[in-house]
Amino acid sequence: MKGFVFHGPGQSAWEDVPDPAVKEPTDAVVRVGAVTICGTDLHILKGDVPEVRPGTVLGHEAVGEIVEIGSDVRTVRPGDRVLVSCISACGRCRYCREAAYGQCRGGGGWILGHLIDGTQAEYVRVPHADLSVHALPAALESKDAVLLADIFPTSYEVGVLNGHVRPGDTVAVVGAGPIGLAAIATARLFAPERIVAVDLAASRLEAARQLGADAVADAREDPGQLVADLTDGLGADVVIEAVGVPVVRPGGHVANVGVHGRPATLHLEDLWIKNITITTGLVDTHSTPTLLRMAAAGRLPTAQLVAHTFPLDGMEEAYDVFARAADTGALKVVLGGHPHDEVAVPAA
Amino acid sequence: MKGFVFHGPGQSAWEDVPDPAVKEPTDAVVRVGAVTICGTDLHILKGDVPEVRPGTVLGHEAVGEIVEIGSDVRTVRPGDRVLVSCISACGRCRYCREAAYGQCRGGGGWILGHLIDGTQAEYVRVPHADLSVHALPAALESKDAVLLADIFPTSYEVGVLNGHVRPGDTVAVVGAGPIGLAAIATARLFAPERIVAVDLAASRLEAARQLGADAVADAREDPGQLVADLTDGLGADVVIEAVGVPVVRPGGHVANVGVHGRPATLHLEDLWIKNITITTGLVDTHSTPTLLRMAAAGRLPTAQLVAHTFPLDGMEEAYDVFARAADTGALKVVLGGHPHDEVAVPAA
Amino acid sequence: MKGFVFHGPGQSAWEDVPDPAVKEPTDAVVRVGAVTICGTDLHILKGDVPEVRPGTVLGHEAVGEIVEIGSDVRTVRPGDRVLVSCISACGRCRYCREAAYGQCRGGGGWILGHLIDGTQAEYVRVPHADLSVHALPAALESKDAVLLADIFPTSYEVGVLNGHVRPGDTVAVVGAGPIGLAAIATARLFAPERIVAVDLAASRLEAARQLGADAVADAREDPGQLVADLTDGLGADVVIEAVGVPVVRPGGHVANVGVHGRPATLHLEDLWIKNITITTGLVDTHSTPTLLRMAAAGRLPTAQLVAHTFPLDGMEEAYDVFARAADTGALKVVLGGHPHDEVAVPAA
Amino acid sequence: MKGFVFHGPGQSAWEDVPDPAVKEPTDAVVRVGAVTICGTDLHILKGDVPEVRPGTVLGHEAVGEIVEIGSDVRTVRPGDRVLVSCISACGRCRYCREAAYGQCRGGGGWILGHLIDGTQAEYVRVPHADLSVHALPAALESKDAVLLADIFPTSYEVGVLNGHVRPGDTVAVVGAGPIGLAAIATARLFAPERIVAVDLAASRLEAARQLGADAVADAREDPGQLVADLTDGLGADVVIEAVGVPVVRPGGHVANVGVHGRPATLHLEDLWIKNITITTGLVDTHSTPTLLRMAAAGRLPTAQLVAHTFPLDGMEEAYDVFARAADTGALKVVLGGHPHDEVAVPAA
Repeated sequence: MKGFVFHGPGQSAWEDVPDPAVKEPTDAVVRVGAVTICGTDLHILKGDVPEVRPGTVLGHEAVGEIVEIGSDVRTVRPGDRVLVSCISACGRCRYCREAAYGQCRGGGGWILGHLIDGTQAEYVRVPHADLSVHALPAALESKDAVLLADIFPTSYEVGVLNGHVRPGDTVAVVGAGPIGLAAIATARLFAPERIVAVDLAASRLEAARQLGADAVADAREDPGQLVADLTDGLGADVVIEAVGVPVVRPGGHVANVGVHGRPATLHLEDLWIKNITITTGLVDTHSTPTLLRMAAAGRLPTAQLVAHTFPLDGMEEAYDVFARAADTGALKVVLGGHPHDEVAVPAA
Repeated sequence: MKGFVFHGPGQSAWEDVPDPAVKEPTDAVVRVGAVTICGTDLHILKGDVPEVRPGTVLGHEAVGEIVEIGSDVRTVRPGDRVLVSCISACGRCRYCREAAYGQCRGGGGWILGHLIDGTQAEYVRVPHADLSVHALPAALESKDAVLLADIFPTSYEVGVLNGHVRPGDTVAVVGAGPIGLAAIATARLFAPERIVAVDLAASRLEAARQLGADAVADAREDPGQLVADLTDGLGADVVIEAVGVPVVRPGGHVANVGVHGRPATLHLEDLWIKNITITTGLVDTHSTPTLLRMAAAGRLPTAQLVAHTFPLDGMEEAYDVFARAADTGALKVVLGGHPHDEVAVPAA
Repeated sequence: MKGFVFHGPGQSAWEDVPDPAVKEPTDAVVRVGAVTICGTDLHILKGDVPEVRPGTVLGHEAVGEIVEIGSDVRTVRPGDRVLVSCISACGRCRYCREAAYGQCRGGGGWILGHLIDGTQAEYVRVPHADLSVHALPAALESKDAVLLADIFPTSYEVGVLNGHVRPGDTVAVVGAGPIGLAAIATARLFAPERIVAVDLAASRLEAARQLGADAVADAREDPGQLVADLTDGLGADVVIEAVGVPVVRPGGHVANVGVHGRPATLHLEDLWIKNITITTGLVDTHSTPTLLRMAAAGRLPTAQLVAHTFPLDGMEEAYDVFARAADTGALKVVLGGHPHDEVAVPAA
Repeated sequence: MKGFVFHGPGQSAWEDVPDPAVKEPTDAVVRVGAVTICGTDLHILKGDVPEVRPGTVLGHEAVGEIVEIGSDVRTVRPGDRVLVSCISACGRCRYCREAAYGQCRGGGGWILGHLIDGTQAEYVRVPHADLSVHALPAALESKDAVLLADIFPTSYEVGVLNGHVRPGDTVAVVGAGPIGLAAIATARLFAPERIVAVDLAASRLEAARQLGADAVADAREDPGQLVADLTDGLGADVVIEAVGVPVVRPGGHVANVGVHGRPATLHLEDLWIKNITITTGLVDTHSTPTLLRMAAAGRLPTAQLVAHTFPLDGMEEAYDVFARAADTGALKVVLGGHPHDEVAVPAA
């Protein structure tokens, strides 16, 4: 089959790779129908994630059809259309028992496209399939569902839930890239009084407005003052995506989302007296079933995050468009996801 | 009357000052029976807290007798023995309505010995008395109760409650000074499996053991390894008092207690993938009624935190002993608190 | 002035009563601009609430203008347009410190139109004004704001918050009278997957649909089956308003709202194995500031709950229309609330 | 092998039954080393639990040694000494993903000695072994550990955690049988100010005192008044084990533990205005790992709950002693659990 292979920093190709097969009784093999690219994949290509060995197929997000299962898989079977979660879960370790699947110590966590071959290929082997894929309702199209593999649960769990957004809150989302936009969309599930989006790019701020931001601020023009003006000088109840922007109110929450490559300065000299809660996090995807129900009911604006689509074999072009987002205006790119991609073909 | 007055960095004296009197209908005047010194007072003396104007009487912790109340005070009356909380609360602002008294926007918060004259004197005026003093049960001696003015609620709220200590947890307390020791004592209220105390001083580690630490570690000898060994390599569920000591487990909490004068480095490059919650905080003292009940029932080891006592007019010596804790072995020092201090004398 | 006076079961009149005046330094007197009638008022008229003495002016919901304040009132002043909450709060007792104002032990709780004269009059004395009235934003009209005196915080706190509605939930609201309709409106703040309304009256089910119910069921036609069909046989995550309708899922919540006059049968033989949480409650109105912000931002459908309006002196007719809701289709009735009602007139 | 078989109401025997064997790849077979009898077993013998078919081996609590595992079992292996939980868990269904194992919809929940053969035998087949047994630390003796199969997690989860016991609370435990005593022991993990035990039997009240009750009350002598006296008339913060005893304070919690065979009267006419939370529950055993750590650290008084021990083949006598608890003073009875019971013997 074809897959998108990392060959070391700056080197990658859509090329022939061996077909995956079931190796453990808990495995499933999925024929990929729709896939997307994550900012983390760009970091891997740059060489920022040394755990990824050359020769690895990238990708940790997909929708596809189960074509083979191991003898212990109970909850899905060949023919099922499933979401492949970015997080795999053994279901048995201490962390999995607390639904903290991202910290799985039984061979799960973030492994796809990281420690083992991933989803940017025609087929993918998914370990611990029972807790790592989700059968999809017919009402939900693959091109929409694929955004629930990573970006929506990440924004929702690590941003909105960790940030404890509540009805009536003022929420500041700093950075209106795909993660920030999905945070805006999912923060709305808790009916904040207002969402303020902060970014440098006018196009992203416009996208933020369309996804539900009530106010937007250019990051160069004192967003802290805007937030202060909107909140009687208090600051935001919840800040998503940034350390260091001084817009949180005393007693508020700062929820960091996404991958960080270097330390930040924590201004304890200002914060200690303000009762601030700061959270960091890798997604657990415990919210995926809930988000799937919401998406199937038409209550998540997944399509608004996708401006560019490609066929599955347009992987290299898709990477190029996604990597040059400042020029191309790319948010999330989706490959496949068209009805013809979903027709079952023999698994080898 | 006499009071301990700050005269600018490095300058202070126990000297004659005007008697306080009720100025607002919500004020009370308290004759001080027992008082203590906080690490923050030492910071003020060094000039680290510029909001404190020369001429201010220091101190934000006391037990004493109400000698005068304003016309709006409802919950206490002259003759009552009360705890003077380090935090005053208007009871009417947004923050007070959420019991976040430390952030009071109606003229409360930390004001005693900070923005107005404090408790290190023979008498003190307490604004917003209804929510800022607590009537004391007869069973609780003043020398014990005075530790509930600041150090116990601070350790409990900002350390133990913010850190979400739960039964069965491993709790690491980094720094076994008075705050850390009170954190050990109050963490025990949630039945952790073990408490590990970390400090540089053998005497403090010994005090930690006496207050309930199950293991102690010299900060120079890789406490992270000790914690790892005790927790199957996972790390502590809760870390109290320190940023930067890498002993917290994935999914754990780091609760910063106390005053910070400079920024810390937040190693987001390590933390982002570990789902860590970091909290900072000024105490709210919402737990004071609970702690008073526990102390009156003999369930808080207040006396174990006090190695040195002085009469009220021994203030300058007490400051000296407390400031040289490394030499003197001082934990908390208590002034007054003896029965004869409690005899009512005319308020002028 | 005029007021609506209870004269014993079945007897009441809009008649001359003495003007109220400030009696305690924490009181305020409010000129009533808009008022409404609560189902509880009908219970009082029937004699079901023996605590209400004949001669009492009824009513515990109003919007109006402050005309006089006592010497201790800090947060409002004459001329302010305010919401008079159905719950008064001393702000100093144990319960008020936990924002459980409904259980105030310092002379507050539900007192207006219950233990003292209430709001269905031209003027009303409000004790503990600082914590019992809320200054209104100019953007919010009185006829809308008056619904936030009782029905909206009751439905939100006792129904939605006690019931722990979360995004993706199935919520069953049993009884689509005013309280149930406000529960539907406020449950939507947490983005449930679906809300199922159950009632006997087609007109109320139609109102439920307009306020956001996704499905409706006639109470005579096995609503449990409808809920089961919608939830793969599981049952609802949250049931609001009813004991006894067997529609809650294992692990779900049942939140009772409103006044109950007689015991219910608790089927422990079915429930014990299902891990059910059942809550009851009098409103605390701690959510009123949040709801006011949401209403001012246009995010609460207050107007949809009002089908009938009257001038203030149409009280007797308004009671008649409200009491015959089955015939008149009345939801909430609002008296006053027109601009001309809001013009300040001398307070005596 | 031998097992204790239910033959219909009033009929049972310790008799020869077929040896169990692995049937599903997720099964384990355990040689029973220690077992106990639950009040529920007595209900089954009376015929109160019609789901139990004649011919079933009873028992849902055991400690033993793994002698055989299916091909999918990952976390234990033959030779391991394990606790057999009263609750089995598939680990894959919606409820298991939320650690609500008692509600498992994938073939788990309470099945042992209920829907399939149980633990009161020389060997037992345990389905879904990975999530249904727990490897035991060497420090914990079998006769102590066996109390963690049901009674301790039930009291802790359904009583103490559902009841939200917090430091400083007054907790009333109504009924000082084994469940109530374990509730007293585990409530202490949260440092309540006081625990009040209520029962009819002086011997049980004495046991309650030994396990940590601070006050005891004869159920015939107005325990509500005792609780009121201890709490300034307020009532208890948390009531465990009873509906109907009017001792809970406004805003408090009532946590029902254990099996109920008939409906109770819920006095909504009193409760609605008091903001009460009532919970019911079957245990999930999500707390078992925590309790095992606590027991291994010597922090759970398991031994104090056991007054009578028997060899494994003394089952019929043990049932007799346990069933006549009023005469025999039996709390929990333990069979086996002696070192010689733990020596491995061939599994057939």
